[in-house]
Amino acid sequence: MSTPDFPTDEIVRTIPNPSFLSTATSLLPALQTWVRRPVAIIKFVPDKTLFWGVRPVHSYPITSLPDLSWGKEDEFILDFGVHMVGRVSFTLDSAGEHMDAPCRLKVTLGESPMDVVMSMEDADVESTWIGKGWLPLEVVTVDECPEEVVVGGTGGGDGKGRRHAFRFLRVKVVDTSLKYKVVVKDVRCEVVSAIAPETKVGDPAFGEGERGKLLRRIDHVCVSTLRDCMQTVFEDGPRRDRRLWLGDLRLQALANYCTLKDYNLVKRCLYLFAAFPRNDGSIPACVFEMRGGQRVVESTDYIVDYDALFVATLCDYVEASGDRDAGRELWKTAEGGLGRALAHVDETVDMVNEENGKGWKFLDWEQGLEHSAGLHGVLVYCLKKARKLAGMLGLEGEGVTRDYEQEIERLSKGAKRFLSGSEEREDLVFISGPKKQISYASASWLVLADIFPEKTSRKVLRNTLKDGNAVRPLTPYLWHHVCEALASVGMTEESLEIIERYWGGMVKAGADTFWECFDEADAMRSPYGDVRINSFCHAWSCTPTYLLRGVLKGKVGGSDEGNEGDIAMGELDERWVKESLERIGKQ
Amino acid sequence: MSTPDFPTDEIVRTIPNPSFLSTATSLLPALQTWVRRPVAIIKFVPDKTLFWGVRPVHSYPITSLPDLSWGKEDEFILDFGVHMVGRVSFTLDSAGEHMDAPCRLKVTLGESPMDVVMSMEDADVESTWIGKGWLPLEVVTVDECPEEVVVGGTGGGDGKGRRHAFRFLRVKVVDTSLKYKVVVKDVRCEVVSAIAPETKVGDPAFGEGERGKLLRRIDHVCVSTLRDCMQTVFEDGPRRDRRLWLGDLRLQALANYCTLKDYNLVKRCLYLFAAFPRNDGSIPACVFEMRGGQRVVESTDYIVDYDALFVATLCDYVEASGDRDAGRELWKTAEGGLGRALAHVDETVDMVNEENGKGWKFLDWEQGLEHSAGLHGVLVYCLKKARKLAGMLGLEGEGVTRDYEQEIERLSKGAKRFLSGSEEREDLVFISGPKKQISYASASWLVLADIFPEKTSRKVLRNTLKDGNAVRPLTPYLWHHVCEALASVGMTEESLEIIERYWGGMVKAGADTFWECFDEADAMRSPYGDVRINSFCHAWSCTPTYLLRGVLKGKVGGSDEGNEGDIAMGELDERWVKESLERIGKQ
Repeated sequence: MSTPDFPTDEIVRTIPNPSFLSTATSLLPALQTWVRRPVAIIKFVPDKTLFWGVRPVHSYPITSLPDLSWGKEDEFILDFGVHMVGRVSFTLDSAGEHMDAPCRLKVTLGESPMDVVMSMEDADVESTWIGKGWLPLEVVTVDECPEEVVVGGTGGGDGKGRRHAFRFLRVKVVDTSLKYKVVVKDVRCEVVSAIAPETKVGDPAFGEGERGKLLRRIDHVCVSTLRDCMQTVFEDGPRRDRRLWLGDLRLQALANYCTLKDYNLVKRCLYLFAAFPRNDGSIPACVFEMRGGQRVVESTDYIVDYDALFVATLCDYVEASGDRDAGRELWKTAEGGLGRALAHVDETVDMVNEENGKGWKFLDWEQGLEHSAGLHGVLVYCLKKARKLAGMLGLEGEGVTRDYEQEIERLSKGAKRFLSGSEEREDLVFISGPKKQISYASASWLVLADIFPEKTSRKVLRNTLKDGNAVRPLTPYLWHHVCEALASVGMTEESLEIIERYWGGMVKAGADTFWECFDEADAMRSPYGDVRINSFCHAWSCTPTYLLRGVLKGKVGGSDEGNEGDIAMGELDERWVKESLERIGKQ
Repeated sequence: MSTPDFPTDEIVRTIPNPSFLSTATSLLPALQTWVRRPVAIIKFVPDKTLFWGVRPVHSYPITSLPDLSWGKEDEFILDFGVHMVGRVSFTLDSAGEHMDAPCRLKVTLGESPMDVVMSMEDADVESTWIGKGWLPLEVVTVDECPEEVVVGGTGGGDGKGRRHAFRFLRVKVVDTSLKYKVVVKDVRCEVVSAIAPETKVGDPAFGEGERGKLLRRIDHVCVSTLRDCMQTVFEDGPRRDRRLWLGDLRLQALANYCTLKDYNLVKRCLYLFAAFPRNDGSIPACVFEMRGGQRVVESTDYIVDYDALFVATLCDYVEASGDRDAGRELWKTAEGGLGRALAHVDETVDMVNEENGKGWKFLDWEQGLEHSAGLHGVLVYCLKKARKLAGMLGLEGEGVTRDYEQEIERLSKGAKRFLSGSEEREDLVFISGPKKQISYASASWLVLADIFPEKTSRKVLRNTLKDGNAVRPLTPYLWHHVCEALASVGMTEESLEIIERYWGGMVKAGADTFWECFDEADAMRSPYGDVRINSFCHAWSCTPTYLLRGVLKGKVGGSDEGNEGDIAMGELDERWVKESLERIGKQ
């Protein structure tokens, strides 16, 4: 697989804002840690009826682990029953005559069954254009036993060993010797998150029956995904890329406001972006943290739509938290973020043309997506958020550099040119670019921009959904916007159906946390050339909880739909572990 | 390659001697450490004229290392210029836009060029019956830079990282990312040995001319080999097996007495063996140390000839050190060690028959070697050492359980039955076993036992050496005994020729330290199935210094042969590094 052709960004210069960085640093959360231990020793057996083509079965009782010894080429998989983020350690002991040679182990930290079923040897992994260093394989060599093994003992950057995100731990013995085998015992993970197990979260039911059960599990997986991504920043994925992306942040923040309600972590992230404005007013698409948040470096990555969405993220934050001071302090940053997107507008027709300006337009990972109509929708959506934020902050006139009313009106008019077909007939759709591409991205963002009458929006959405040639989403990021667009125009059932099919599909495939990428028809699909390098706990897929607890609230159906009170995150985890074990079945 | 069929030992029970262990522990040396840095960045290019088929050339000036950056699949080799034992660390930094993915490196610690030219991937290494954990390959994954990387960061058993024995350090970058490369700088090895660089050693010349130069280099390599094996015990090989073997100890001690003169380390090792006598009076063939000597475990390995040789080792120690107290304390242990060997004597003919008793008979790694005659020689040799030791300790009668005179006389008579052929003709040899095997092992040990007139011994040795069907040695351990036997009967030139050809061959092949195994005709030869698992600094090959400074002293020829005074080990190392660089040639 060749490297995608990312548009190169024009030369920009960062003008750091130490004051904002200082505010961000003051909000560095005290990370919570707790210990989790494996609940089963399993192996995966073929089962073609399942998404991954394999099914977990017990291979030994978990209580027998300290009594089992492993020799050359032996291997086993430990199931922790739930996805977690943390540092793994265990005691390695020897059994037999004596340890007369070093023991070498290969330890794989698996989020998905494929991670521990396929080989993680870098040589076996197909061509991928992102770093193979992400492959969660650690080679451990031990000279003397008993030894406390910290998996990934150096390289974690903080002297504590490398952090991993996983549920399954595969241990393969490369070799011991003729004289001894090894015992792997006291396996534990020091789990880490900004959110403690004691943190309470609302625990709504979503009606009885299969749909209700499934939606409740989807909601739960969303919250777990969000929690595992909440570290010293909102990470995109705790396994990969482990960094703060602006687009992901916006969705995480929305899910957070209706669940874990950590306003400070959102604030911290907003200030981190605002600490690295560039000379053209734009802000980077992501920010790197190092040394547990003690050092921050801005990325050279830049994404036009993410940049524009900063104002939406800030508006949502002020609305949710009531923190107008932060809103006012970051207003200028937010306005700046709109600049590069606005530069894409073709003034002759008041339409965004993605060729008009520089910078990577994202919307979704699907290759070949035309971004003009979608970016136009993003832009109008963001201009309206800016207008709303200025209103909330009482900024009218003062410090506001654009006439948002006028811009919104102009671009709303321009948006109509993306419409193709007839209101009356069944061919009404949005088209984008010279090839008149029809896509879910265009439809959902132009609907979310709330430009057209609901009837038009509904028609366009319905026509797009049933158009087999429309460019579909690859990522949950865009599926979210499809679902939100549907829900925003009252297409509740269509929205729920996608949630059930798409996110429910991941749950049925065994997801503890939602994935970066899910193709119902192809378990091996990856934006990076190899499924083993995908992230299976990825922030931008945690939004159904936001929709179910927000715009879809009360519309799921079922008479007993309601809030079941609060539950501690730790209890939710235990519920999940219990269900995981039930799914594996009897020993 | 299948596992050799080691004779299984009969059930024995260790009856530990805590007092002897306590003495051994009180003699634990304070290990010396110093820092050594690479002197060249090299690559190996094909050169069929050389033993290994490759020749080192500079690839970059060593001073440029901090300025070089390495990306996916890049690799380089650092040459430290001399073999050493220690812990390697370096600073890993990133260069480029930013480090947006972990960096994974494969670090190979090479003693021989093949170690860093061939792949050390366990999957590539041919079938070997000893643990692949010995392969000196470390996989390092680093999340954040700059990072201080300790190669083999966990697993060393003492919290300080794994100890390696090497001269060459190969670094291969598995991957970085599209955004950055890595810089490897401040590479250093904390070298460790019981012997400090300040320790003085005699620096004899061995005459002028090519022979003199070669012998001086052989002598130097012997001393380096010995020093690198001297840790908390006399290790057999600091890379592999890293433990105290009785047979190796004897030779190391002999080399040590005429060079580094660390009597306490020999004493410590003798007491370590004596701490683990077994119910039949035998002692284990090796002892394991853990936690830097804080914990000692006896091996279940047992070797009949090693057991017998304990008395010789003790006798040599008392003679060299004058420490009669230790001699008296360990006398009983020494006498016990002879028991299992004596049990192999067929009383009807007073000849050892290797089938008569249990236990692994070693003498050499060569498969198919018949041990009866050789073990007979070892036994008489040891009985004479016992007689001598008893004499030195003034033990006659008191505490002596065997009539050594009588045993020696009996077995000397029996030994004659191994003779075949006529004193007059050119067919006089020793034969061993039912197939009448002629071997270097039989010849050298029966000569070293000093049973026959010198004339007979010389004739047998000469006939064996020129017999193309005689079983030749595979290891330096047996080559030593051949050389010593030759020298002991005045065959100085033949002894020197072997030293020049065999040890000189290793020197010419580029050895900084002498190897466990050397086959002039086959660089890939290994007793274990794969040359990459051989040890290239192996104690039992360090004995030419003992012969050259001892029995061969003054017989090398050349009028200017003599002692050039003392030199510090550190100066010897620097001389070697300088010569190594000269051999690589100009940048």
